[in-house]
Amino acid sequence: MEVTLNAFSQRVKRDVDARLAQALDQLAGSGAQLKAAMHYSLTNGGKRVRPLLVYASAQAIRPGMQEGLEWIAAALESIHAYSLVHDDLPAMDDDDLRRGKPTTHIAFDEASAILAGDALQAFAFELLALAPLAAELKVQLITHLARASGAQGMVLGQAIDLAAVNQQLDLQQLERMHRHKTGALISAAVTMGALAAGANAEQCLALEHYAEAIGLAFQVQDDILDVTSDTETLGKQQGADSSHNKPTYVSLLGLDGAKAKAQALHSDAHQALAQLGPAADTLRQLADYIVERKA
Amino acid sequence: MEVTLNAFSQRVKRDVDARLAQALDQLAGSGAQLKAAMHYSLTNGGKRVRPLLVYASAQAIRPGMQEGLEWIAAALESIHAYSLVHDDLPAMDDDDLRRGKPTTHIAFDEASAILAGDALQAFAFELLALAPLAAELKVQLITHLARASGAQGMVLGQAIDLAAVNQQLDLQQLERMHRHKTGALISAAVTMGALAAGANAEQCLALEHYAEAIGLAFQVQDDILDVTSDTETLGKQQGADSSHNKPTYVSLLGLDGAKAKAQALHSDAHQALAQLGPAADTLRQLADYIVERKA
Repeated sequence: MEVTLNAFSQRVKRDVDARLAQALDQLAGSGAQLKAAMHYSLTNGGKRVRPLLVYASAQAIRPGMQEGLEWIAAALESIHAYSLVHDDLPAMDDDDLRRGKPTTHIAFDEASAILAGDALQAFAFELLALAPLAAELKVQLITHLARASGAQGMVLGQAIDLAAVNQQLDLQQLERMHRHKTGALISAAVTMGALAAGANAEQCLALEHYAEAIGLAFQVQDDILDVTSDTETLGKQQGADSSHNKPTYVSLLGLDGAKAKAQALHSDAHQALAQLGPAADTLRQLADYIVERKA
Repeated sequence: MEVTLNAFSQRVKRDVDARLAQALDQLAGSGAQLKAAMHYSLTNGGKRVRPLLVYASAQAIRPGMQEGLEWIAAALESIHAYSLVHDDLPAMDDDDLRRGKPTTHIAFDEASAILAGDALQAFAFELLALAPLAAELKVQLITHLARASGAQGMVLGQAIDLAAVNQQLDLQQLERMHRHKTGALISAAVTMGALAAGANAEQCLALEHYAEAIGLAFQVQDDILDVTSDTETLGKQQGADSSHNKPTYVSLLGLDGAKAKAQALHSDAHQALAQLGPAADTLRQLADYIVERKA
C-alpha cells in the first residue's frame, strides 16, 4: 500500500475496532465464553477491506464525510467475521487455520463457533439499527446488508461453493459463485458508504461497477496467491483451495490467464470511477492494492 | 384451544404463512437447495406461537389493528426457525426429529442446515426492513429483534443451555437459561406487536411482565409434557431432555412442583394484563392455552 492509503487504512481500522470493542463491551450480561468467541472471531487480524471501502466510497461522494461510518463498517465486519467462522466449520470448508491462527471452532469448540457466528449476525443488524443516522437511511442500509448477506448474496455464494467441490465449474459458474460469496458484501460496503454520503443513483451505479470489478479482482488475486505465495505469508495453508479440488481462476485460466484477468478487472475498476474525480483516489488506490497485494 | 382462539390462530397462521411464502418466492436467483432447506425449516408444522402473540398484543393495544403485523410475525418465525435448525445440529443438541419430522440437517445435510439457518436470520431482518411501516418504527423493531435474538438474548440462552449439559443447575440458573433461550423472543413478539400498535411505555411494561410469565410457563409446561406425554403426541422423542441429562423444572421441582409453578406463572400473566381490559382477551386465552396444551 502507498503511504497515503496506509495512513487512511490505519485510521479506519482504529475507528472500526473502537466501535466494535465498545459495542461488544456493551453486551452486558452476555456469557463470557460466547463473548470471548465473538471477540476472537472479530479480531483475527483481518485486513478490514470492507471498512476501508465504506470510508473510501463515502469520501468519493462527499469528501470529509464521517458521520456514522464506523457503525456501518463495524456491521459489515461483523457479518464478514460470522461468515468466516461458519465457513471454516467441519461441515463446511473444515479449515483449522485462518490468517495464521486457529479458527474459532478450533480455539473454542464447534457449538461455540456456530453460536458466535449467529450472534455476530444479529450484532451487525443491531449496530446498524443503533447508528447515529436518520431512520430512513438506516432502513436502506439494513435492507442492503440483509440482501447482500442472505439467500441472494453471501450465503448463496457459500452454498454454490460447497456444491462445487469435486465438480467441474466453468468460468461463468465460478464467477457466479464469487459474485455472491464475496462480491455481494464488497458491493454492499461500497454502496452503503455511498448511501450514507448521499450518493445519487448515477453515482451508486458507477460505484456498483467499481465494486463488482474489485470484488472479482480480489478473488482472482486470492487464487493467484494460493499457488504463488507460501503458507507463512498467506496465514493459511498454501494450496488449500486446489487441494480441496475447488475450481479456481488459476485452474481454469492458468497462472498467466489469471494474472491477465486480474489486470483487466483492475482497469474496469478504474474506468468505473472516471466520472468521480480526485475524491475517488482512495478507491483507486484500493483497486491497485487489491491486485498488487502479496497476502 | 377455545373456538375463538382457534379461529384467530388460523387467520394469523394463514396471513403469516402467505407472507413467508411470498417473500421466499421473491428470493429470485437463489439456489434451489438453499431455498428448499429454508422452506422446509419454515414449514415444519410449528404452532406459530410468536405470530399469535404479535397479533394478540397489537389487538390488546389497538383493536382491529392489522397494518404490517404479518411482516413482524414472519420475521419472528424466521428467527425462530433458524434457531431450531441450528439448535438441532450434531454439534449442538444433536436431534434427528422435530415435530415428528426429520430435522433440517437430516432431511438435507449439515452444511445446508447451517446455511439455511444463516439465511433465515438475514431474511428476518430483510422482512422487517421491507415492512410497510414508518422507518422510525422499523428501526425500533429491528433493534428489538436483534437484541432478543443475539448475544444478550436467544443465542446466549442456547450457549447457557449447552454449558449446562451434565451440570447441576439450580432453579435460578435454569430460569436464566430459559429467559434467554425462549423468553427473549417471546417477549420480543409481544413488545413488537405492541409497538406496531402504538403502545405507550406503561402498556409496554405490563405486556413485558405478561410475556415473561408466559415465556417461562411455556418452558415449565414443555418440561412437564416431556415426562407425561408420549412421543407421538409430542412429535419429538419423549423424555429427550431428561435423557440428555439436562436440568428441567420437573427434575428440580418434581412433577407436582412444576405443575404448581406453571399455575403460578399463569396467574402472574393474567395479573399483568389487569389494566388492559377486554381487548387483551386473546392474550388471556393464549396464557390459558400455554399451560393447558398437551403437545
